[in-house]
Amino acid sequence: MTTASICTIGDEILIGQIVDTNSSHISRALNDIGVKVTYMTSISDDHNDIVSQLSHCLDISDIVIVTGGLGPTKDDITKDALKELSGSAGYVESSVQMEIVKRILEARNMPMLETNRAQALVPEKAVVIPNELGTAPCMAFYGLGKSGKSVLYSLPGVPFEALGLLPKITGDISAKFSLEKITHYTVNTFGIPESVLAEKISGWEDALPENVKLAYLPNSTLGVRLRLTSFGGDVDFSPYILSLQEILGDAIYGYGQTSLQEEIGKALHLRGKTMSAAESCTGGRISELMTSIAGCSDYYKGSVTSYANSVKIGLLGVDPDVIARYGAVSEQCVRQMAEGVLKRLDTDYSVATSGIAGPGGGSAEKPVGMVWTAAARRNDDGSIDVVSRKLQFSSNRAVNIERFASGALNLLRLHIK
Amino acid sequence: MTTASICTIGDEILIGQIVDTNSSHISRALNDIGVKVTYMTSISDDHNDIVSQLSHCLDISDIVIVTGGLGPTKDDITKDALKELSGSAGYVESSVQMEIVKRILEARNMPMLETNRAQALVPEKAVVIPNELGTAPCMAFYGLGKSGKSVLYSLPGVPFEALGLLPKITGDISAKFSLEKITHYTVNTFGIPESVLAEKISGWEDALPENVKLAYLPNSTLGVRLRLTSFGGDVDFSPYILSLQEILGDAIYGYGQTSLQEEIGKALHLRGKTMSAAESCTGGRISELMTSIAGCSDYYKGSVTSYANSVKIGLLGVDPDVIARYGAVSEQCVRQMAEGVLKRLDTDYSVATSGIAGPGGGSAEKPVGMVWTAAARRNDDGSIDVVSRKLQFSSNRAVNIERFASGALNLLRLHIK
Repeated sequence: MTTASICTIGDEILIGQIVDTNSSHISRALNDIGVKVTYMTSISDDHNDIVSQLSHCLDISDIVIVTGGLGPTKDDITKDALKELSGSAGYVESSVQMEIVKRILEARNMPMLETNRAQALVPEKAVVIPNELGTAPCMAFYGLGKSGKSVLYSLPGVPFEALGLLPKITGDISAKFSLEKITHYTVNTFGIPESVLAEKISGWEDALPENVKLAYLPNSTLGVRLRLTSFGGDVDFSPYILSLQEILGDAIYGYGQTSLQEEIGKALHLRGKTMSAAESCTGGRISELMTSIAGCSDYYKGSVTSYANSVKIGLLGVDPDVIARYGAVSEQCVRQMAEGVLKRLDTDYSVATSGIAGPGGGSAEKPVGMVWTAAARRNDDGSIDVVSRKLQFSSNRAVNIERFASGALNLLRLHIK
Repeated sequence: MTTASICTIGDEILIGQIVDTNSSHISRALNDIGVKVTYMTSISDDHNDIVSQLSHCLDISDIVIVTGGLGPTKDDITKDALKELSGSAGYVESSVQMEIVKRILEARNMPMLETNRAQALVPEKAVVIPNELGTAPCMAFYGLGKSGKSVLYSLPGVPFEALGLLPKITGDISAKFSLEKITHYTVNTFGIPESVLAEKISGWEDALPENVKLAYLPNSTLGVRLRLTSFGGDVDFSPYILSLQEILGDAIYGYGQTSLQEEIGKALHLRGKTMSAAESCTGGRISELMTSIAGCSDYYKGSVTSYANSVKIGLLGVDPDVIARYGAVSEQCVRQMAEGVLKRLDTDYSVATSGIAGPGGGSAEKPVGMVWTAAARRNDDGSIDVVSRKLQFSSNRAVNIERFASGALNLLRLHIK
């Protein structure tokens, strides 16, 4: 089986100033083409460390993917290490990357500085893969490692550049290696806690064949995803999926790389309907999730973040007496928010939240982590159906905002269904 | 110098289905107390791999932090590996963790299942560190590795649990090791591209003393942060910071772990002023950033996401003729959005965006990645000052939304100043 190591370079990762998102994207892309990632590591901005770690990776893996350390500044030293590793005598200017550097600087009305010019220099033995998205080059080095057959790809650390270059890298790998087939199938569920889910499907799980492996992937935004994996050959997952559907029903919201907002978008688009959102404690997160999807303007008209009560009253038409009597965090208020935003933005559906994200502000009756969610639908006869649900989560603000938002979207999803 | 390895366990990381954010938080916390993280790696859900990798880490590091693989499901096998590594004969029930499991399930009205009960079982030689945030135990194992003095800490993989437990872990480490001092000082800048910044401060950088190291940390949301690091002993960073302030002026928005939204919040709070936002292309991201800060209700009243033009007109009072003549993505429209939301939500300041996030929808005149931002201020005499600025970024939707939002917040920051 063809194996790969992924190495991220940069002190900023080892001292924890940035989160490495590249490795995740890269390993997913490699898995998709049947390359098994067996090793992931982070290396500091130290010439000897980089050279020795990369040598080790080239010895144990067929493919080594390196990200980071290619920027224009003095702490970016990956290229020097690659020059040594590849046995390059010196640097040469890549005319293709130089053209790109010029184009990018011109588009941004920026002058060509010495540091920009240096971006197009690459070790003599590098094969340049044009990086249209930035000034740093993407490079391949062939025939390395103790096998003399390992390949090293060096990508910029900037996430959208690394991500944009991945298809070129996987294309090159597919052309150069004969790859075994790994298949993943993911079933996305929402609303059932991981432990309850595990109990519910325990019999189903035990009945899976030897060559199919199950993993639970819990996530605040995406719910618990169940991932089936088979190694080698084609597996027909459909009988397992069908029996899983019988057990879980509505808790399954989609398959593969999807999300609540994507499924809601598809459902609205299919029906030619629109939606809006009224957010208090989620502060814009629902709207952000909905608009993260290109083309959402087909069905998403907008939202009101009514953090202050005056905004709930003034823009959403919530009755001040309701707030005075039941509080802003109440079933009565959240239902009026949902109805209000639906009417004001003239949409077919809406969703609303009002809760206590924390860390402060809770009480015995309304503790931190509690949220009221509502979803509204305008029927063909003009009447409006509102459903509401109370949820209780943890004490962490960021986690609560995330769970409140996805809990509300899940309520909307079921209301559309 | 005391060293540490950080190991994340779980196939979901190696196949790229989740992004590892724990390692970043852990390494930052370790650095803060003077522990140098020299090794970071991800291990698959395989008993032998876990045992051999952790043995290796215990041999090369004083401290090993392990996250993940402690969940209630069958693919979580870290505990078995730790039992073997620590030479524990069997499992014992941790009464302190069992109490927590009971409490958590009761609070959520969930039954005690066999899988929950198993969460409180730990290898005999484990010292349990109570995890109040979840059902999985946090464990310490002492006297391991070839030195016989290495310590292993095992944390749950759920990010907010791991994060919440960190102070207990660093407290234990500080008590058990005599630590060298590492100091970081971060200067946060916004609005100057990394390569221009590097050129601007090149002379300053060259004049830094040997024991002070500079790193550039570019980030769409946070701008380019400049991180100074000194190893061993106390360093007075202030002369370097003062001379940097002279070069960069207003481009510096804060120091240490901060953000544009945090600095805006501080500035508004200090002045007793309020703000609101009108978002088109940023779709709620500005509002989400502002409300990510606990206590923001002091100064943040809310926002309108006016994705559809009808919402710009109906809720924000944008003149339909302006949209017809100049388009929704125009200086005229974004200025009216800023003024409209300030008036409608009755705030002292506001910020607005209208742009083309992409990937589709651009034109030669208004390409993908272009945004108009505006910030408005109500003066003491009731008049309103609006400033606006056009920015141009890339072709990637997610990156654009992030840069549009932070670009707009930066304009607001300067307008408040």
